[in-house]
Order: sequence, then C-alpha cells, then structure tokens
Amino acid sequence: MPQYRALRERYGLLDICRSPELAVEVTLQPVDEIDVDAAIIFSDLLLPLEPMGLPFSFVKGEGPSFDNPLKSESDIDRLRAIDPREELRHVLDAIRLAREALDGRVPLIGFAGAPFTLASYAIEGGPSRDFAKTKSLMYGHPDAWHRLCELLAGVVSEFLLAQVNAGAQVIQVFDSWVGSLNTADYREFVLPHSKRILDAVKATGVPTIHFGTGTSNILSDMAEAGGDVVGADWRIALDDAWQLIGEDRAIQGNLDPTALLGPRHRLFRAAEDVLRRAGGRPGHIFNLGHGILPMTPVHHVQALARFVHSFRMAEVRG
Amino acid sequence: MPQYRALRERYGLLDICRSPELAVEVTLQPVDEIDVDAAIIFSDLLLPLEPMGLPFSFVKGEGPSFDNPLKSESDIDRLRAIDPREELRHVLDAIRLAREALDGRVPLIGFAGAPFTLASYAIEGGPSRDFAKTKSLMYGHPDAWHRLCELLAGVVSEFLLAQVNAGAQVIQVFDSWVGSLNTADYREFVLPHSKRILDAVKATGVPTIHFGTGTSNILSDMAEAGGDVVGADWRIALDDAWQLIGEDRAIQGNLDPTALLGPRHRLFRAAEDVLRRAGGRPGHIFNLGHGILPMTPVHHVQALARFVHSFRMAEVRG
Repeated sequence: MPQYRALRERYGLLDICRSPELAVEVTLQPVDEIDVDAAIIFSDLLLPLEPMGLPFSFVKGEGPSFDNPLKSESDIDRLRAIDPREELRHVLDAIRLAREALDGRVPLIGFAGAPFTLASYAIEGGPSRDFAKTKSLMYGHPDAWHRLCELLAGVVSEFLLAQVNAGAQVIQVFDSWVGSLNTADYREFVLPHSKRILDAVKATGVPTIHFGTGTSNILSDMAEAGGDVVGADWRIALDDAWQLIGEDRAIQGNLDPTALLGPRHRLFRAAEDVLRRAGGRPGHIFNLGHGILPMTPVHHVQALARFVHSFRMAEVRG
Repeated sequence: MPQYRALRERYGLLDICRSPELAVEVTLQPVDEIDVDAAIIFSDLLLPLEPMGLPFSFVKGEGPSFDNPLKSESDIDRLRAIDPREELRHVLDAIRLAREALDGRVPLIGFAGAPFTLASYAIEGGPSRDFAKTKSLMYGHPDAWHRLCELLAGVVSEFLLAQVNAGAQVIQVFDSWVGSLNTADYREFVLPHSKRILDAVKATGVPTIHFGTGTSNILSDMAEAGGDVVGADWRIALDDAWQLIGEDRAIQGNLDPTALLGPRHRLFRAAEDVLRRAGGRPGHIFNLGHGILPMTPVHHVQALARFVHSFRMAEVRG
C-alpha cells in the first residue's frame, strides 16, 4: 500500500514494530482501504528472539539476518527466557491502542511464530530453502533441539497469553516453514511444542488459527497439534485440505498470492474456485494461502474483497 | 566429495560443464567412490539458456544470476532457438566420453530442465521463493508464456534426443520448482509442454524419469505428462506417492537429503522406511528426494549405498 510505503521511507520495519503508534497506523490501513473483515496487528514474528539473545536486522531484498545464528548446544543454552510483558511490551501496547482505534469495527488478530519456524531462522541465520542446518541440529542433537523448542514454546505461550490480555480477539500461530518436514519428523520434533502453545491459548477461550505453507502432507498432524482454524496454502485444493484437517475444524485459505498479480478475470476465477470448494459452509475464512507480495496492486486486493463479499451474499440469498 | 572440491578450486562450475574431460571426471567420481547403481552426466540444467540469448553466471552462495532476465513479451520474442548438436556439443561429447569411460559398469543418465523450471530462472533472474514474476507473466500474458515454453520445449526435446544419440541410456527431466503450482495451473501452463518433451524421448525407447519437488498435489498430473519413472520428494510418504503416480509407473525417491546430515542410526531408519514403503516391489529407484547438500559427509553417502544394497539383498533372500 502506498501509505505503508510512504511510512517505510521514513522508518525501518523494526522501528514500526517497536513504536505502538506507528504499528497501529499500519494495522488500520487495510481495514480502512481494503474493507477486510479482520485486522491483524502489525508486528514481526522474529521479535521475541532479540531479547532472548539473538539480535538480527533486515537486509533490503534478502529478509532477516541474524548477527550470531545458533551453531551449537552451548549457543542454545546461552539463550534466556524472557517476560514478554516486559520485553515485548510495545506489541502489547500496540494491541491495546489498535483495539481502541478499531472501536469494534472488526476483530483484532494477535500472532506469534511457532517454535519450528522461529528456531529455523535462529539456526539458519535467515531465510533458507533446504533448512539443512536446522534439520542437522534436529537429527543430530535431538535433546538440544527439544530444549530450544521448549524454551521457545514457553516464551511464545506467555507472549500470546499477554496478547489476549491486551485485547487480541483471535490468535494466529505462524509455522510458515514447517512444510519442509514430512509427517514423521513433524510429529517427533514439532507437534508437542506447537500443541503446548495452542493448548495454552485455547484455555483462554480465544479462537486460534494454525498456519503453515507447503503443508499438504502434514495438515492432519497440524490439526492434531491444535487450532480452531487450520490454514492451507494454494498448492492443495481447499476441499481436499478440509478433509485432511477434519470437518470439525474451520479452515483458512487458500488463494495463491500471485493470483493478485494477474488480470482480474483470472483473479476472480481463482477466488471463485476457492469459495465453491468451501461450499458455502460455515467455518471458512477466505484468505491468501501465504502473505501478500510487495508488488501487489492495491486495487486488485480491494476488488478481491468486494468479490468475496458479494459472492458470499449471493450464496446466502441464492 | 573432496575430489570435486579440489577440482572446483581450480575451475568454475560452468568451466567444468563446458569441458567434456572435466565433466566426465566428475561424472565418474560417485561411481568410483560411492558405488551408486547409475551415473548421471555432470552438467547444469541452465546450459541451454545462454546460447538462446540469456547469459548468466554463478554467484558464490547464491546460485545462478542472469544478466538480463526476461521482463517483457519482446524479451521473449528476442530469444532464439538453438541447435543443441552445435551449441551444446560439449555436453554430448561428455556423454560419449563418459560412456566409454564407464565401459558398461553402470548406465549413464542424461538430463535437462523442464520448461517451467527453465522459464522461472530466466524470468526471476535466479532462484526464487514465490515465483511471483513467473506467475505474473503466466497469468497476465498466457500467450507469451506458452510461446516461451514452446520454444524451450523444442530446444529441450532436441537436446535430449541428441543426448540419447550420444549414448545416454536413461533421460531425467528436472522440473525442480513446479511444486509451487496447484493442479489447475500445472495442467494449463505446464503439462502440455512437459508432455511434448517426455513423448519425444519416449519415442526413442529410452526410459525417462520425471522429477520435481514439493509436488504432492500434482503427482498424478506429472505422471499424466509422462515419465516411465516419476520422482517424489520426502514430504510425501513413498507409498502414498506411488498411489498417486499409478502402480503402472515406476517411482524414484524419496529420502530427505538432510537425513544424510544426521547420525547414522537416524539415516538408516529413514532409509529403511522408504524401502519398506516401496514394499520390495520392482520399479522403485531408491534416491534422495532432492539434490545432495554441499555439506554432506561422503562417508554417510557411502554407508547409505551399502545399506540400501544390503537391504535389497536381504529382501530378495528373505
């Protein structure tokens, strides 16, 4: 969005995350301009890692880069548990301010990264294609891996409970890169830690969304870990994904974000396919299968929101 | 392998590809040192692109980088069809020399990139995570996309037929990144072009392997495009993949390459799981689900080859 770009010319991504006022400004932009049905707090899933002892910065065009990636068991043992109510207070303040600014217009979603995805950034030192260092630690030093994930699960649980207390009405847990694992590895190395977080939030009564990409083969395992809603990316047909997740759960997804880069007739056709596969059943949250791409034209997103809203109304009336 | 690293200290990747003698030396290294059951010619799937008008180089640690990525329809229309017997003669010479050097010890596999994967490198200008530019062209300019893929399919078909004539005994078609598409897009934008290549090779009687990663949702479509053998990556269980591919086809796969970075007991357990899921049935080519990672210890690969060979014999005897 041009409003966001204008802000980013003056502030870095992390500066915005650390300033509750700026974070709220960005949080409200899509609500005001695109007429989405929910707001998600502007933040970054890596934020808890810095106070834990893993400073990082964003390198233009390349994503996050950690100063000292985790290389050994002793690196892991040097990490410290934090109190998110202190060290991540700016996120909680942003949530409080956003709730006030939204004034009930749409619900506010809080979020955090899941242990696998956080650990993979900390171990790889940035984005990765093969997650070789992460899996190498996982397979070679399973005890250290589980210690790391327990530490992360504890911090993330506390962080999410604090977000609920600050006013988050839905919680999304991002395990963005967990689709690099097969079922066996997911169940052994990830499921218990993600479950702990999702269980902790569930106990508050606030609904949870459990999100990943490339997860076609582990959707039922992710559903077992938890989430009132489980996300699916565009690689799998929405109805197939729903079957794997279980019809007792809600589903979020799953338009390919690149569909927004093409012409409108293609965009609408792809969106309609998603909606038809959802079959008008309750429990479908229409969304992209992954984050929006930077070069996406805003008017396409606005047109998509109108299309989805009108399609829903036509279904209800029809 | 240390022998390869030693060579790479003196020569660039493309220098080796362009020198038949060096390419043969590298082709034979795993046969001599690891006791694999087949050799694959040392080459790079991007080689046809340079003579077509798309020069590139390899940037250390980042992969290929194209001088002038395809940005418009007119860029595509400026590309030229090549005669691989002339412009890629060094690969064909390497195949002839490798056949002589192998002297019947193991069969020799030739290969090329499939149109989607080649086009994505040419459009993105290098590796990509989201293939946004590629899909943007595909959705927005489908005619130009199909023209590009027809051109690529023609060149790749000629190249592979020339490899067969030079002595390649099996042909592998790499569509490494096609798993970024869902079924509908695969069928519309990729299948016809890949099919053309696989049909052309099939007509020679030489067996074909059709390879991709992250393809769980399009395995049956890939099988429809062709391949006597279809590859599966580690994300999907081998028996599930085989069901999607069809039991009339052979399957290649699907150990996670990162399993070679862990301890041996884990490596063997993961390999045994693959072999058991294959059920001792003919038509399974044991392989990694994707390329071997640079930091892999050679002694683990050697141990894996021994494990797979002995397991197979035990099954036969049992």
